[in-house]
Amino acid sequence: MSAASGNVPPGRPGPDLADTGRVAAFSDGVFAIVITLLVLDLRVPDFHEGDLAESLVDEAPSFLAFIVSFIYIGVLWLNHHAVLRLVRGSTLALGWINLAILFGVVVIPFPTAVLAAALTDGDRDDQRVAVVMYSVAAALMSAPWLVFFAYLRRHPALHGDHVDREQVRAQEARPITGLVLYGLAGLLGWFVNPVLGLIGIVVMIVYHGVTSEGIRPGLLHRPRIRHQD
Amino acid sequence: MSAASGNVPPGRPGPDLADTGRVAAFSDGVFAIVITLLVLDLRVPDFHEGDLAESLVDEAPSFLAFIVSFIYIGVLWLNHHAVLRLVRGSTLALGWINLAILFGVVVIPFPTAVLAAALTDGDRDDQRVAVVMYSVAAALMSAPWLVFFAYLRRHPALHGDHVDREQVRAQEARPITGLVLYGLAGLLGWFVNPVLGLIGIVVMIVYHGVTSEGIRPGLLHRPRIRHQD
Amino acid sequence: MSAASGNVPPGRPGPDLADTGRVAAFSDGVFAIVITLLVLDLRVPDFHEGDLAESLVDEAPSFLAFIVSFIYIGVLWLNHHAVLRLVRGSTLALGWINLAILFGVVVIPFPTAVLAAALTDGDRDDQRVAVVMYSVAAALMSAPWLVFFAYLRRHPALHGDHVDREQVRAQEARPITGLVLYGLAGLLGWFVNPVLGLIGIVVMIVYHGVTSEGIRPGLLHRPRIRHQD
Amino acid sequence: MSAASGNVPPGRPGPDLADTGRVAAFSDGVFAIVITLLVLDLRVPDFHEGDLAESLVDEAPSFLAFIVSFIYIGVLWLNHHAVLRLVRGSTLALGWINLAILFGVVVIPFPTAVLAAALTDGDRDDQRVAVVMYSVAAALMSAPWLVFFAYLRRHPALHGDHVDREQVRAQEARPITGLVLYGLAGLLGWFVNPVLGLIGIVVMIVYHGVTSEGIRPGLLHRPRIRHQD
Repeated sequence: MSAASGNVPPGRPGPDLADTGRVAAFSDGVFAIVITLLVLDLRVPDFHEGDLAESLVDEAPSFLAFIVSFIYIGVLWLNHHAVLRLVRGSTLALGWINLAILFGVVVIPFPTAVLAAALTDGDRDDQRVAVVMYSVAAALMSAPWLVFFAYLRRHPALHGDHVDREQVRAQEARPITGLVLYGLAGLLGWFVNPVLGLIGIVVMIVYHGVTSEGIRPGLLHRPRIRHQD
Repeated sequence: MSAASGNVPPGRPGPDLADTGRVAAFSDGVFAIVITLLVLDLRVPDFHEGDLAESLVDEAPSFLAFIVSFIYIGVLWLNHHAVLRLVRGSTLALGWINLAILFGVVVIPFPTAVLAAALTDGDRDDQRVAVVMYSVAAALMSAPWLVFFAYLRRHPALHGDHVDREQVRAQEARPITGLVLYGLAGLLGWFVNPVLGLIGIVVMIVYHGVTSEGIRPGLLHRPRIRHQD
Repeated sequence: MSAASGNVPPGRPGPDLADTGRVAAFSDGVFAIVITLLVLDLRVPDFHEGDLAESLVDEAPSFLAFIVSFIYIGVLWLNHHAVLRLVRGSTLALGWINLAILFGVVVIPFPTAVLAAALTDGDRDDQRVAVVMYSVAAALMSAPWLVFFAYLRRHPALHGDHVDREQVRAQEARPITGLVLYGLAGLLGWFVNPVLGLIGIVVMIVYHGVTSEGIRPGLLHRPRIRHQD
Repeated sequence: MSAASGNVPPGRPGPDLADTGRVAAFSDGVFAIVITLLVLDLRVPDFHEGDLAESLVDEAPSFLAFIVSFIYIGVLWLNHHAVLRLVRGSTLALGWINLAILFGVVVIPFPTAVLAAALTDGDRDDQRVAVVMYSVAAALMSAPWLVFFAYLRRHPALHGDHVDREQVRAQEARPITGLVLYGLAGLLGWFVNPVLGLIGIVVMIVYHGVTSEGIRPGLLHRPRIRHQD
């Protein structure tokens, strides 16, 4: 900790730093709206009398897309929540980086819808286009997270209490993995097989879900809460 | 209270625990959007000059569905609000459980719309399908609440001040009742009569509304506020 | 102040009371969504090349309705904001009353749209129906505010610091005025002339806007902030 | 600081002042919804099998409009965030001024859509109309910010800690620049060339983005955070 930041009461941003409260509130609003708007794509199917069950079964892909998207955005929120706990206050640069992160979140329903349309109505060429588009969107989403961790590593005065530099440095591995592997999934989808690319994307979403726990050792991962049975 | 949690200032989460603030803010956003989007289904009916009153009367079922849905989501918010007061801080596991609870909230307008469509345009088979679908959705919504209380019972360090284990244990009865009775309502609707199943569902919504008070004895139920007349 | 509430640190709710934070956050979300969704009704008009200006002028009533609705919901938010400052904590009863208030807020775009449709496409009978519908909705909106103040008057332990009983009692005049005068506006619109009823409604909105300042003397109305020129 | 405000603990509003928390929460909600609703205008294009790529390329103007609008509203949020940090508490007047600022934010998607429609489907006259409409909307948006700073300059008791009068006075230059230059852009667009007017508008958005950093010297601009390499 620098002398300058030593004068700041722990847990409270000083005059140089804005509270992260509004960054969190604005982000929570965006996440909440994106995750709720997904349900608007679930529509009661037109059905002939007595055929409701069949019509609903035809809608199964929409339900599946809804569930996957809900989980994906939920995972992104959990990550955002964990990451903001690493910082003690916000600067203008963090505000811009956060806007870039939210851009990636807000945009994700669109390539998802394009992918669904290509799988339903498109040919192999369309599917290649859609898989590449999804990969580019997902890789773009990794970029601001990388910038965030790099910025945070270089500004230790922004670190929250109980956060050390090693912890911050370790986080950078994750968006780099995202950038590289989403890129590979896109190349696979374009040059080899769109379905292979798609599998790569699903693997990456699962990876992000699993490591949403992994990225905060000592904070949430191993809570020293004792079972009292 | 364990020794570990005894070191934590009362009412404040320690380094192991995240503040529940963002969990609440994100959830409030989701509830607010779901409850507000309901009004989008209220549309000014097309009408011939002089026939506005009759056209509005024809829309009465939509108004009724709007009011019931508003109350239902309102009850869910009151429950969520009361339940989050039982915990002192959030963990990753609670974050996931909360996402599952919100999934149930976000999804509920869809089976409601299917039910309304089946009652208006469907035959008895469609109504059986719709009632079963609604029952399954409602039972699914009970499941994460049960997980929540079971998790909380096993982690007393997460309990808020003024919360004892008996109080937490008592809460588990409610989602279990929900799981069992919504399931029975679905079976009734499928094998006996869809209208009977529907009545069972309405009874359950009323039950949840009534017990939204019952689940927090000593917290909100019997406030020791004296009337001063 | 009762002995029970005297044990509670000022400004903080005790174990019997929930913090008003989540009530405010949930309500803010609902207000924010309702006020923002209004703009969705502003649509770029279809126009022939060179006729954009005329097409926009034809949309003027929509713009006017948008502005009036924005101001109306803004006034309701200012009132809600001021009123929540009167209380120190929330109870389950206040939670239900707040839901009823929000119901009135969420519903208001619908009678507004019916009124606009009746004025554009309806005859005199349709306008009578629309004016009465709007009056009933506005009167219904006054009812939970009245319940709120009556409840608050009978529970002094809920009063915030710097709030005395006279101040709370004085607030009841406002929703009573709303109930009576919106009712009169409805009767005027039905039995005399829909346009007269409409004027009565506009007068009431202006009244609510003006008294949104009047209802909190000593709190915000006459801030003892000195000009330093 | 006046004697009256000297009695108030630093950073906390006194009895005369409302906390800015709800003003921020309500505003954050509005910003979050406006910025998220933009993505609703991105639609999967209808495409013939094998033509997805071409159909997506045809949608490029929509993507560009989405990105520009996202950045614009993001800049407005950053400004709002910075500006609210200048004040220690909220008054009714600030509540009204904030509503006027939010009105400008909520409205902006509409002239943007009109402009896009005029550029795609209109002739030169339509474009002149659209450019003037956008300029007027942008100039109107500057007005409440000017009122805000003028009000704040005259009420030093509202100033947050670490905020001096010179800092507040310096902020007024920005909305005045906005009013004058958006006005000039409108005149350019009407009397000379709509494209020139459009360029003027884009320059102004860039100006607002760049000076969103400039308006808070000493607060966020030059954080005394030391690099520790």
